[in-house]
Amino acid sequence: MKPVVVTGVPRVPADKLARLATLGVSTAHEAMGRSGLLKPYMRPINPGSAVAGSAVTVLAQPGDNWMIHVAIEQCGPGDLLVVGLTADNTDGMFGDLLATSAKARGVVGLVIDAGVRDVATLNEMGFPVWSRAISAKGTVKATLGSVNVPVVCAGALVKPGDAIVADDDGVLIVPKREIDATLKAGEARLANETDKRAKLASGVLGLDLYSMRKPLAEAGLVYRPWNESEDK
Amino acid sequence: MKPVVVTGVPRVPADKLARLATLGVSTAHEAMGRSGLLKPYMRPINPGSAVAGSAVTVLAQPGDNWMIHVAIEQCGPGDLLVVGLTADNTDGMFGDLLATSAKARGVVGLVIDAGVRDVATLNEMGFPVWSRAISAKGTVKATLGSVNVPVVCAGALVKPGDAIVADDDGVLIVPKREIDATLKAGEARLANETDKRAKLASGVLGLDLYSMRKPLAEAGLVYRPWNESEDK
Amino acid sequence: MKPVVVTGVPRVPADKLARLATLGVSTAHEAMGRSGLLKPYMRPINPGSAVAGSAVTVLAQPGDNWMIHVAIEQCGPGDLLVVGLTADNTDGMFGDLLATSAKARGVVGLVIDAGVRDVATLNEMGFPVWSRAISAKGTVKATLGSVNVPVVCAGALVKPGDAIVADDDGVLIVPKREIDATLKAGEARLANETDKRAKLASGVLGLDLYSMRKPLAEAGLVYRPWNESEDK
Amino acid sequence: MKPVVVTGVPRVPADKLARLATLGVSTAHEAMGRSGLLKPYMRPINPGSAVAGSAVTVLAQPGDNWMIHVAIEQCGPGDLLVVGLTADNTDGMFGDLLATSAKARGVVGLVIDAGVRDVATLNEMGFPVWSRAISAKGTVKATLGSVNVPVVCAGALVKPGDAIVADDDGVLIVPKREIDATLKAGEARLANETDKRAKLASGVLGLDLYSMRKPLAEAGLVYRPWNESEDK
Amino acid sequence: MKPVVVTGVPRVPADKLARLATLGVSTAHEAMGRSGLLKPYMRPINPGSAVAGSAVTVLAQPGDNWMIHVAIEQCGPGDLLVVGLTADNTDGMFGDLLATSAKARGVVGLVIDAGVRDVATLNEMGFPVWSRAISAKGTVKATLGSVNVPVVCAGALVKPGDAIVADDDGVLIVPKREIDATLKAGEARLANETDKRAKLASGVLGLDLYSMRKPLAEAGLVYRPWNESEDK
Amino acid sequence: MKPVVVTGVPRVPADKLARLATLGVSTAHEAMGRSGLLKPYMRPINPGSAVAGSAVTVLAQPGDNWMIHVAIEQCGPGDLLVVGLTADNTDGMFGDLLATSAKARGVVGLVIDAGVRDVATLNEMGFPVWSRAISAKGTVKATLGSVNVPVVCAGALVKPGDAIVADDDGVLIVPKREIDATLKAGEARLANETDKRAKLASGVLGLDLYSMRKPLAEAGLVYRPWNESEDK
Repeated sequence: MKPVVVTGVPRVPADKLARLATLGVSTAHEAMGRSGLLKPYMRPINPGSAVAGSAVTVLAQPGDNWMIHVAIEQCGPGDLLVVGLTADNTDGMFGDLLATSAKARGVVGLVIDAGVRDVATLNEMGFPVWSRAISAKGTVKATLGSVNVPVVCAGALVKPGDAIVADDDGVLIVPKREIDATLKAGEARLANETDKRAKLASGVLGLDLYSMRKPLAEAGLVYRPWNESEDK
Repeated sequence: MKPVVVTGVPRVPADKLARLATLGVSTAHEAMGRSGLLKPYMRPINPGSAVAGSAVTVLAQPGDNWMIHVAIEQCGPGDLLVVGLTADNTDGMFGDLLATSAKARGVVGLVIDAGVRDVATLNEMGFPVWSRAISAKGTVKATLGSVNVPVVCAGALVKPGDAIVADDDGVLIVPKREIDATLKAGEARLANETDKRAKLASGVLGLDLYSMRKPLAEAGLVYRPWNESEDK
Repeated sequence: MKPVVVTGVPRVPADKLARLATLGVSTAHEAMGRSGLLKPYMRPINPGSAVAGSAVTVLAQPGDNWMIHVAIEQCGPGDLLVVGLTADNTDGMFGDLLATSAKARGVVGLVIDAGVRDVATLNEMGFPVWSRAISAKGTVKATLGSVNVPVVCAGALVKPGDAIVADDDGVLIVPKREIDATLKAGEARLANETDKRAKLASGVLGLDLYSMRKPLAEAGLVYRPWNESEDK
Repeated sequence: MKPVVVTGVPRVPADKLARLATLGVSTAHEAMGRSGLLKPYMRPINPGSAVAGSAVTVLAQPGDNWMIHVAIEQCGPGDLLVVGLTADNTDGMFGDLLATSAKARGVVGLVIDAGVRDVATLNEMGFPVWSRAISAKGTVKATLGSVNVPVVCAGALVKPGDAIVADDDGVLIVPKREIDATLKAGEARLANETDKRAKLASGVLGLDLYSMRKPLAEAGLVYRPWNESEDK
Repeated sequence: MKPVVVTGVPRVPADKLARLATLGVSTAHEAMGRSGLLKPYMRPINPGSAVAGSAVTVLAQPGDNWMIHVAIEQCGPGDLLVVGLTADNTDGMFGDLLATSAKARGVVGLVIDAGVRDVATLNEMGFPVWSRAISAKGTVKATLGSVNVPVVCAGALVKPGDAIVADDDGVLIVPKREIDATLKAGEARLANETDKRAKLASGVLGLDLYSMRKPLAEAGLVYRPWNESEDK
Repeated sequence: MKPVVVTGVPRVPADKLARLATLGVSTAHEAMGRSGLLKPYMRPINPGSAVAGSAVTVLAQPGDNWMIHVAIEQCGPGDLLVVGLTADNTDGMFGDLLATSAKARGVVGLVIDAGVRDVATLNEMGFPVWSRAISAKGTVKATLGSVNVPVVCAGALVKPGDAIVADDDGVLIVPKREIDATLKAGEARLANETDKRAKLASGVLGLDLYSMRKPLAEAGLVYRPWNESEDK
């Protein structure tokens, strides 16, 4: 693992990012065949945010945010910073000064498998962050890592230039080569859901809408009245 | 464990549910002699909600929400869905479509020992949920479980037709046969608290209000001035 | 460990507390040389609160809030209750009645390495709390502990009369003898940050602002264009 | 929840217990349709133990082992103590003196959703224990609970007189009314496994032994040589 | 927190350490009035070890074992190294080379609120360790901490020269000024236990030996035969 | 994520695997510049095992071991099975029958980010396993995954044909292209350690052996006699 900064990574086009953000994490995740999610311990510090960005990846040492400073220079409009670590850590590796700098370059958000701080200010700034912790614990700038190499973040592999979708449901990685298929399947799914929602709201049961009664019976499901139940 | 759906479960009367919701979780829990609570990892996705409902129980497999679809048909006005699992899981087993269907049948909320998704939409819909996690992770519909059998949810035993009280303090099970005694003791307690609160707000100390000075002294509590303390 | 209540503990002057609250947790923690933080599992139940107080310490048994009642009598304006436990516990050891009493005596907040309850009411009252859990689980009043002795709370040693700073970033202990140095270093840091923030917002990079390019190169950091990367 | 000790609970016959112990936890669990397991945080303090017993249940308060003393009197040869708690706890609620007393009455082991202590002595005595923790933390004898009522232990419902099977794989509850079916299905399974093991040891693949190739192909599984792989 | 190494710390006499080791953690903890334990996540890497030593304390940064090297020089025969950290960490901060050096100076063991590595070798060497984790993760030598200052280790305050007792039940701190009282109370307790154990082994019940029947009845405990139980 | 089985993956030569096993996890990890480790929650079920193998990777669904059966066919002598999951899970996805089959094909061990069962038998068989849990929880064979694609296992990226080293200190991934450099650096390190160990055993201090006194003084470390310490 030689420390390296890879420059000039190709980006996901802005229109595709916008369409992914509209899909949202849960729908895009289904459209990908239920893959790509970061672990659910990654939570938004500012609920209600919903963004999609092109991944600029950082591999950092626990408690050391030197490489995040390096990564900012590699960022441009539409990018989303994704920070993975070499060991579990909850220190506050990102705060309001880094957010100010990131925002100045057009970064749309941060996903970090560690802690962040200055969260009151980050919320005022409207800078969206998904992290595993909030912590004031300060960090050093002592050991190199890498920028724009493949990293594991919260259990998922992220490569530079992958699309990242993040909202209140969590964070999703859409690998470059799966973006088009995800958009196609996801938008079809979304169109389909409006109709389903109307039917369900009118009282149609999922059992009927999804034709579940037959497979349930074949799997052996039995209905029994309360007064015959053993567990009354 | 043969898969079964028990139908026609007797409900808790609406007026008793309304009174339990007014008591709230902490007061009702004290009135029950400090029993009946689910583990504190169960948190509301929509803070500020406070409901009571008659339990429709679901025993589901991790990552499989088939039985929740089955359970919806067994629900009516005033019911609250309680989902227990056969193994620890945080997948997003419930989302906006199921919530739409549940709401159409008058369900007042969901308590699930797993994850939920579409939380931004659930909050817009005002559908109250208490869960152990938020996760976009999709689920399958492959293995049977049961509906309206006794289930263990977040460490507590819930039987169909038990009363469930849920608010920002957590989730409480009031077994059928303890509802009346809980209402009686809880409402007495509530009446009593108004007076206590006024006295405490005026500066009366709990030490005096609850006559604690004597038992404290008998238990051996000693007061020592700062300049005689060993740990200065 | 003989149970004892130490009385007449000297307080941190109000003006110093006000200045510490203005610094905030993250800045004061940096000013102290990155020490003094409680573990990050301590979270505010009312986001947006930011206080500093003079510590009144409580050593309590798990599930037993007797000593909190005792401690209230030792509190005055500007004090902040800090409760440590003899074993891990998440029970709801503090609720609206204790908060009413604490508020009547001028207590500015609570830091407790356990659970609290009645959180909806605590938020309405505007009483700030940092805790490890929210739980309705009731407690007994059966076993003695101590008041105003050194306690370990969420991994940090707190002595009576230490300054406590708490906000959305967490909770910080400033030992008595470090308060003046912390104020001096922290206020210098704060003054310095305004200028830095303006530069970063205008697009100056941290790499340049902090003169990082030379040490990064010396540590061996290499830049490589995308089309020469091995991980494309 | 009125404190009660239920006496004269019917036991599981010794021969059935012996047969369940021979099946072991994993086989009996499969025979039950994959139900009945306690959570996997329950671990043996003495690896290599394998027992089955008739459940004497205890509902205890955290940090209070009074009811375990009460329960010992209700125990006889072939019984296994199962201790559930009203809230999460890791205190050392059981040690060598209680084990001496339990052994004197013929108790075959302990399953406790809390901590135990004196583990070096317990191992010398050969008294099998499955617990969630090892801790020297002492307990009080102050609050009542119940003996031989249904309890939730490590996520599973246990009723007095249920069969408990415990070995290095964990702890299983076999409800009274499922014992015979479990023995029948489990012993058939065990007989079947000997033959399977021989075939697998000789090099036959599970893919062929279980006829998986066709369903895998139908589900869409594709084989691709290394030099055509995208992820080389 | 200025980095400092305090030299010439007074030690606990060897005979008192030997007597504490004989008491063991659980008995000494009871003798201290149930205080002084480290959290139960501290586990021995070599079960069966039982030692007592005079604390040489280390305050270290996560992932940095520089100060452990510094501390070794301050150690002599009968000392036990106690390492606390400024933030949660599981890195392998101690391995076979440090153990070789510690052993050469007569150190009797290590208690560390982090990880250790080379555990196979440590076990061969017979060097006793209690840690929160085992991890090969390497560390740096970059940031100062302190030696022989008060540290918080696994939730307990340890001062240089305190006695440490550690065995399979966990780790106990006996503060200097409590050593004599602990020995006196603990040895009395131990003498008493031999007699109790013999009585319990002969079939006498704890209910009778400890005269519990009357207080249980007064607290309201009720006995009910199985065929009158509601939960049959 | 289309399900795929990649066949004919090139293997790490046997002599290099043997040399990596001799290095052990901690030394090889240092030789790699402190990278490549799986999270420390991965523990051996059979302490004392030490192996190195060529990775056959499996991406499996939680609670579904279908793809492990598929993977066995792709295994040969010297291979080590590495199983990653699409979501956190502790079910017992591997037991004695799969181990029998794996052993028949020459597989040297299993690394699985989930649970295993039949551990008593696995230990008798001498089949080495590193897992996150032990659990009897049975699994289904219902959903496809992939074999020999890059997977994330316990926080680390593993590609088919990478070298895996595992012992009591944990599990290490050595990517194909780093194997030679790791062997070279690791074997140099090992040679060097024998000499260091002898010096340290003879009483030479690490402070002198590693020439730490000067950098410590430059970093500001201060020595102070006990009777001048503030924390006496």
